[in-house]
Amino acid sequence: MPIYNAPVKDLQFVLHDLLKVSEQDIPGFEDLDPEFTGAVIEEAGRVASEVLAPLNMVGDVEGCVLEDGVVRTPTGFKDALKVMKDGGWTAMDCDPEYGGQGLPYVMHTAAQELMVSANMAFQMYQGLTHGAYSAIHVHGSDAQKQKFLPKMVTCEWTGTMNLTEPHCGTDLGLMRTKAVPQDDGSYKITGQKIFISAGDHDMADNIIHLVLARIPGGPDGIKGVSLFIVPKIIVNDDGSLGDRNGVSVGKIEAKMGIHGNSTCVMNYDDAEGYMIGEMHKGMRAMFVMMNEARLGVGLQGYAQAEVAYQNAVVYANDRLQGRAVTGVENPDGPADPLIVHPDIRRNLMDQKSFVEGARALILWGTYLIDRAHKNDDADADGLITLLTPVMKGFLTDKGFEYATAAQQVYGGHGYIEESGMSQFARDARIAMIYEGANGVQALDLVGRKLAQDGGKHVMAFFEMVKTFIKDNEGNAALKADFLDPLKAASKDMQAAGMYFMQNGVKNPNHALAGSYDFMHMMGHVCLGLMWARMGKAAMDALEAGASDKDFYETKIATGRYYMARQLPATAMHLARINTGADTVMALEASQF
Amino acid sequence: MPIYNAPVKDLQFVLHDLLKVSEQDIPGFEDLDPEFTGAVIEEAGRVASEVLAPLNMVGDVEGCVLEDGVVRTPTGFKDALKVMKDGGWTAMDCDPEYGGQGLPYVMHTAAQELMVSANMAFQMYQGLTHGAYSAIHVHGSDAQKQKFLPKMVTCEWTGTMNLTEPHCGTDLGLMRTKAVPQDDGSYKITGQKIFISAGDHDMADNIIHLVLARIPGGPDGIKGVSLFIVPKIIVNDDGSLGDRNGVSVGKIEAKMGIHGNSTCVMNYDDAEGYMIGEMHKGMRAMFVMMNEARLGVGLQGYAQAEVAYQNAVVYANDRLQGRAVTGVENPDGPADPLIVHPDIRRNLMDQKSFVEGARALILWGTYLIDRAHKNDDADADGLITLLTPVMKGFLTDKGFEYATAAQQVYGGHGYIEESGMSQFARDARIAMIYEGANGVQALDLVGRKLAQDGGKHVMAFFEMVKTFIKDNEGNAALKADFLDPLKAASKDMQAAGMYFMQNGVKNPNHALAGSYDFMHMMGHVCLGLMWARMGKAAMDALEAGASDKDFYETKIATGRYYMARQLPATAMHLARINTGADTVMALEASQF
Repeated sequence: MPIYNAPVKDLQFVLHDLLKVSEQDIPGFEDLDPEFTGAVIEEAGRVASEVLAPLNMVGDVEGCVLEDGVVRTPTGFKDALKVMKDGGWTAMDCDPEYGGQGLPYVMHTAAQELMVSANMAFQMYQGLTHGAYSAIHVHGSDAQKQKFLPKMVTCEWTGTMNLTEPHCGTDLGLMRTKAVPQDDGSYKITGQKIFISAGDHDMADNIIHLVLARIPGGPDGIKGVSLFIVPKIIVNDDGSLGDRNGVSVGKIEAKMGIHGNSTCVMNYDDAEGYMIGEMHKGMRAMFVMMNEARLGVGLQGYAQAEVAYQNAVVYANDRLQGRAVTGVENPDGPADPLIVHPDIRRNLMDQKSFVEGARALILWGTYLIDRAHKNDDADADGLITLLTPVMKGFLTDKGFEYATAAQQVYGGHGYIEESGMSQFARDARIAMIYEGANGVQALDLVGRKLAQDGGKHVMAFFEMVKTFIKDNEGNAALKADFLDPLKAASKDMQAAGMYFMQNGVKNPNHALAGSYDFMHMMGHVCLGLMWARMGKAAMDALEAGASDKDFYETKIATGRYYMARQLPATAMHLARINTGADTVMALEASQF
Repeated sequence: MPIYNAPVKDLQFVLHDLLKVSEQDIPGFEDLDPEFTGAVIEEAGRVASEVLAPLNMVGDVEGCVLEDGVVRTPTGFKDALKVMKDGGWTAMDCDPEYGGQGLPYVMHTAAQELMVSANMAFQMYQGLTHGAYSAIHVHGSDAQKQKFLPKMVTCEWTGTMNLTEPHCGTDLGLMRTKAVPQDDGSYKITGQKIFISAGDHDMADNIIHLVLARIPGGPDGIKGVSLFIVPKIIVNDDGSLGDRNGVSVGKIEAKMGIHGNSTCVMNYDDAEGYMIGEMHKGMRAMFVMMNEARLGVGLQGYAQAEVAYQNAVVYANDRLQGRAVTGVENPDGPADPLIVHPDIRRNLMDQKSFVEGARALILWGTYLIDRAHKNDDADADGLITLLTPVMKGFLTDKGFEYATAAQQVYGGHGYIEESGMSQFARDARIAMIYEGANGVQALDLVGRKLAQDGGKHVMAFFEMVKTFIKDNEGNAALKADFLDPLKAASKDMQAAGMYFMQNGVKNPNHALAGSYDFMHMMGHVCLGLMWARMGKAAMDALEAGASDKDFYETKIATGRYYMARQLPATAMHLARINTGADTVMALEASQF
């Protein structure tokens, strides 16, 4: 069975050496000293390794089963959710008014990584509940909040998000599900939603569906879509559970992965629902959930790569095959371990340097969210809005790529389900698709985010990179290995932005044909920035006489690898972008 | 259910416009006129689309089942193999002396593509039989050939190759299976082999296992390994079937894909075997099978990408989602088809330009094999020996990448098994692993093939590229779009070779740390060369007044895309290679 160990030191390094969370002037951050965060991460890691990880393959093999209209989750999932509730892991950053612990989002995210690495399909039940909680928390009425949030904070009731219909996913303006107003102010919801993660299951007393639907007579397209709370079981005014609502499971989808999560076709048949937020402004309310979910999905990408990497390292050290070309390293054994071979190293370093950079990026992103929300910081908000599609698109593409690369280390054994390596890749695959397929993220980035507020946020991003380089140019150790590659990559990105500006006006396809490459290019610059900062942080720690020299030296060496071997990708992306739309759009549809 | 249509025109284009097969001075090629090859490909395509493709998902869902020691194949497989036998599809290039049709290998390969696209797991039963046939044909005694080949040519008896053991795959010198000589000249084989594709099944009267084993008292390591024929059922001298041999199935592996193929643990327990080829030179005999198998696996890579691409095109034309940014294209519908969006185009063009380039490369490769074998052409043999690891490694990496990219076009629907898109990706995944994991291909290329015969073959490859560029420099249409990018990519590759020469002597890790990048770089140069040649062939056809203008123009536009958007990858690979081993080997094993 695959192993999983919480990367406690790495998380602590990001929180304290890199982000210096306890020194930030953000309400609540003053409590995040290393002792406290270390204790939380250690304990979350224990739950992840001991409770959730052992159920990961169980979930994959058993999957979810629909029996007599009820979804049965895999063996052990119900008990595990109880452990999560009892430990308070479902409520870390939730509002204390509804039973949460009110910790910063960055702290919640650090703990989430561990749960997602250990068992992504399981953790989705909680993740979706958290998203639904957030949407109600921001847009719900007081009565709605009082009625639903306390039970959702504990996962006694779980949540879902219902957007997709059989004929529309990305283009939600085509939606058909309707919501007919009733005399008592409620609505009757009728329609079919598909791909509903955690749509039904046997682990909670109730399920609170957030459903997008169209009120008849409203505007066409996306501007006529409103958001509704539709509980599986009607909640009486005294909080007790009443009748079954008109919600049922059509079927469970057979999927490539995340078998442990019940992905349902949900049928709404005159189901009672309550509008949340403003009429016809459902997408605005849903976006609270979706932006949060997109960072969470970016996290899934690198969290799967992390657990896959850990297992690849074990295998590379255990498996004896061939001899080091520079001389025998295991003379007493019949062969040397795989890890002596340069191409195995190359593969493992690709994985390691990605995962650690991605972790820094996501935690920095959630720190920006904390800053935006708690300090009303518009700059932080603008920056995370810009970066969200990059974090989602780039980290999930690479997360899948490296989960697959980790599987490759196992050779034939990686293709056998028993190794667990296939599951990591299959589970990671969905992250490139849901919450907006990665092509849509690229479109969002280039077609919308770059130009938002007159391009202010992307300019601020470039400025941030430039300032960091300038401020540290005197540091010779940092300059050659970190700052120079970062500068080159950032220049490539600026050149691409220039190309878009100069050519996109004439023909927007010249920009959009390069959108995917731009998303990846910006991802590399982001990880390059994270590594330059981490390199500096590690050098600072060594200079200050840190006791764990080996840890910091490893960090610097890993960063050097990323800068030397991954950042050159930006030049390739720029070359592709600079060819514009001509070859991309050359064919007629019939010529494919 | 997924569709599959044989790319008849594309195959004909490669055979006739590119390779000009019927004009070649190779025995047997004179019969390969367009009418003949067209008729064969059309008919093979019919079998592939109508018989094999409908069983692809059946194989995936049902898989193979071990019951009472016997493997049951999925519904319909047995009948389909009968169709293959009756149609002569199992014997196209086999020796007429043993019932084959004696057609060139290139023709066999063109037909194979169709079968592999339609149903890879099914086609492996025949593919492995063909490999075992070849090994016996080259290294077997006359008596062995007479006894086994006629039935293998028809797939009445199928074949397997048994190399891997639980503790060794790549490093076969560690092998433990032993072969004890008997008084009658036979051997008793005892040991366990794993990952044996088509190891057992219910579709043939007998299974002829080729098994590597060690004769006690022989040299240690790989130099003490010999190859044996071990039939599942003993074949009497009169050709009738006798007793069950000491071969049994331990279990069937649960795999990520190719469920329709029975991947078995095979137990040999004093099984009767007959040595083939020379004692202790089993690897030499097995390599006949392995080199052929490596090209076949490269073919699997692009063949899976081809069928996935075909389905992605259908979906991109059917699925209505969003509007073209340059103006509505489907005013009567609720939205435009996906194919209007530049990023969908980018994705489809990536797939299309890869698959068509890969097809040309593999067919050129098999043409080289024909030339090497039938004309005793040492240059052709040297070239295909050099290119084999590139064809295996690059085409399977990219084949999986693009099968996954095709899945992405489907959005959420691609993650649902019902669409069939997941299966294409899962099936394609194994091609990166078996017949030597792609890291081993890269090692073979850089550690062995580049320097073979004093570097003669790689120099010949560069010379071929250079000559093509020089010969066509006067062609303005070809120069800017095809020759200049090819020249740049080829220069990158030469620079990498130079880096290896200058630094690999000091420390071989400097070369091996860049081996994977070099394999990909060379793959791009190969596809660039193929596209430059195809571009010229298409321009020549247009100039000669070819009637199918649309087809040739599409070919040129697709080639332009590859040259503009894919070849720039070589510069990135060179940048990675030029950093050498320093960052790759920086960590201690304990620091991972």
